[in-house]
Amino acid sequence: MSNLIVQKYGGTSVANGERIMHVAKTIAKTHAEGNRVVVVVSAQGHTTDRLIEKARGISSDANRRELDMLLVTGEQQSAALMAIALQTLGLSAVSLNAAQAGIEATSVHGNAQIKKIQTKRLQAELDNGNIVIVAGFQGINRYGDMTTLGRGASDTTAVALAAVLGASLCEIYTDVDGIYTADPRIVPNAKKLDAITYDDMLELASSGAGVLHNRAVEMAKRYSVNLVLRSSMSGTPGTLIKEDIGVERLSVSGLAIDRNVARVSVTGLPDKPGVAYSIFNPLAKEKLIVDVILLSVGKNETRDYCFTVHKQDLKTACDVLMKHQERIGFESLSTDENLAKLTIVGAGMANNAGVAASMFEALFESGVNIETISTSEIKITVLIDERHIAKAAKAVHDKFEDMLSEDYTETEES
Amino acid sequence: MSNLIVQKYGGTSVANGERIMHVAKTIAKTHAEGNRVVVVVSAQGHTTDRLIEKARGISSDANRRELDMLLVTGEQQSAALMAIALQTLGLSAVSLNAAQAGIEATSVHGNAQIKKIQTKRLQAELDNGNIVIVAGFQGINRYGDMTTLGRGASDTTAVALAAVLGASLCEIYTDVDGIYTADPRIVPNAKKLDAITYDDMLELASSGAGVLHNRAVEMAKRYSVNLVLRSSMSGTPGTLIKEDIGVERLSVSGLAIDRNVARVSVTGLPDKPGVAYSIFNPLAKEKLIVDVILLSVGKNETRDYCFTVHKQDLKTACDVLMKHQERIGFESLSTDENLAKLTIVGAGMANNAGVAASMFEALFESGVNIETISTSEIKITVLIDERHIAKAAKAVHDKFEDMLSEDYTETEES
Repeated sequence: MSNLIVQKYGGTSVANGERIMHVAKTIAKTHAEGNRVVVVVSAQGHTTDRLIEKARGISSDANRRELDMLLVTGEQQSAALMAIALQTLGLSAVSLNAAQAGIEATSVHGNAQIKKIQTKRLQAELDNGNIVIVAGFQGINRYGDMTTLGRGASDTTAVALAAVLGASLCEIYTDVDGIYTADPRIVPNAKKLDAITYDDMLELASSGAGVLHNRAVEMAKRYSVNLVLRSSMSGTPGTLIKEDIGVERLSVSGLAIDRNVARVSVTGLPDKPGVAYSIFNPLAKEKLIVDVILLSVGKNETRDYCFTVHKQDLKTACDVLMKHQERIGFESLSTDENLAKLTIVGAGMANNAGVAASMFEALFESGVNIETISTSEIKITVLIDERHIAKAAKAVHDKFEDMLSEDYTETEES
Repeated sequence: MSNLIVQKYGGTSVANGERIMHVAKTIAKTHAEGNRVVVVVSAQGHTTDRLIEKARGISSDANRRELDMLLVTGEQQSAALMAIALQTLGLSAVSLNAAQAGIEATSVHGNAQIKKIQTKRLQAELDNGNIVIVAGFQGINRYGDMTTLGRGASDTTAVALAAVLGASLCEIYTDVDGIYTADPRIVPNAKKLDAITYDDMLELASSGAGVLHNRAVEMAKRYSVNLVLRSSMSGTPGTLIKEDIGVERLSVSGLAIDRNVARVSVTGLPDKPGVAYSIFNPLAKEKLIVDVILLSVGKNETRDYCFTVHKQDLKTACDVLMKHQERIGFESLSTDENLAKLTIVGAGMANNAGVAASMFEALFESGVNIETISTSEIKITVLIDERHIAKAAKAVHDKFEDMLSEDYTETEES
């Protein structure tokens, strides 16, 4: 049987009739090369935002079940239009919404997870020689109600379909032509990677390189789906994301910047069990995402905690903590909104002790002070003054340029 | 158990957030009066036209299955928005698309017919105290694919739901406040009818009074659903449409005008079996709707046929006939586009021989020449010069004003 390829096209790629026809030709080419093709599409351009606006015009707090019922229509429209476009090229194509494609999901409206895909209809359509267009971002729960998988989750739909259908490749088409070693708008000599491991991609994405949804990468890793991120416009090969990228693992595979961070410092806390829980539990209840948690090394009997939140969550975080000040037992709370996060990621880092030192050296040479350091097995994150982020990114990137290069295989040292 | 009422709101009634809230309050009122309520909604304003335009931008001849997949999203959006609006009023509401509402239809995409409604989910939602909002105009075929019931067919969805759920009433909300004895824009003293029979309504509608879809009225008649046509804005009672309107049947219940007619005359045909078939079969193959067919009384050995078609179909009709001239065997073909159709409808007409005479008298008194006459058991249609249609309508309406009056019961005479 011929190869099966799953392709996913985002909202920009299908924004109007002309772009839909452009994409249809790309799909037709893949099909003409002898592949069976399943295509996942997002809603056109700003459709989802406009539908949310409509709902907000009626209620500021619309019921999530009904909001999902409203939003899933965007992807269904794209899917139908794409099928029509393929048919004008003389190809057999059929669009399926989540109910028809058998995508069963949990009932958490607005943030559902795919549980299972019943592939009977999908397989039948493929066996009939159809190119199958699936509406992304949606599932049905066990009551037959529409649920959405969270914004941008069409990537996840594509990976899930690739996993259950045993696709040889899952191509995520977007408006960038691959994963870069750093944001090219900030670091001009950033390089496009031919390949990256799932783990490095996950760290890069969670550190602010938002080209690919983490849930999609995690699922690709779990089911060993070969992912490719590439441009729907340029036709260049893009970046392959897989378990083993076939060369000695790079020490550093990329650099990510996140400006959307604010730091909260809580000082003068008692040094006893349960303190961390008393701080972070109330924040979790408010669904605040907390990152880079640091606990001061205790030299007195009191200790200090600091952590970062998204800038838009800063006020809520402070309100929550002040409300519980007595119970948590801290002395004072301070915040800093003028910070940015610089992260280097690399699966080989754990075996290269000098990587952190090289990063700190680069920052020192460019005169950038480090506010906070946080490390994991495969990444190093520093918080620095937001005004210096571009300078710092360039300096660190330059320091690792050899390592970042795709030609790099054996010459690494520190 | 409390009464069940089905309400249907058209595209104008749900065109924007403000109107949706207005409608939601009407629904809330019906619910507050102790009724269970099922609501059928159309797509907002020009949504359907815009979606068709999108498809046309890609293909002038879009596949009907995919077009249906695209179009059904309009009603699903309205349904979700209406549920959200009702929830802001503190009511329990849930929206259902055709698949969820169990509306099973034939596979004729773009013109499907409802076959069966599986009411399990609908009943469960009603039993849970929900107001149920159903996306109109759509069904699913046996493969689970979306089909549409033809434009404006949300009326049919409402009547079908009223029938299977045993509703006490099916209210069709629209932008007019009821059925009038004539078009009030042409006949200023036209009166709103409090009630009309299914049969009279069917004749009125097919004679050009396009306020209610014939398929909906036919279905209401078949399943004895009490229909009400009323305004979503004014709050006035509207017109009740039912089998027996409870008073002596009116001789004349309404008057309809249709300007979209053109007459085709075919002359010099042999007087033998099969001639009518040879004329009308080629027209039927082109799906042309033919109305008011007249055959001249034969005084020579040849006979003449004339019939009306919609103005936009005139050219096709003539082309088809000329192509088959030899086989049909007519001498000449002539057309007239400057005609209009004036119809009076009344279930009591058959028992009141003088009705036709009164109509002709009114036309004579106002100096309007009659081009063609066609009658059925419950209607009389004349074709007249289009320029005189308003004058003719007024004269005929005046002549029957007593009969048309809702107070009229026994005093009819010719």
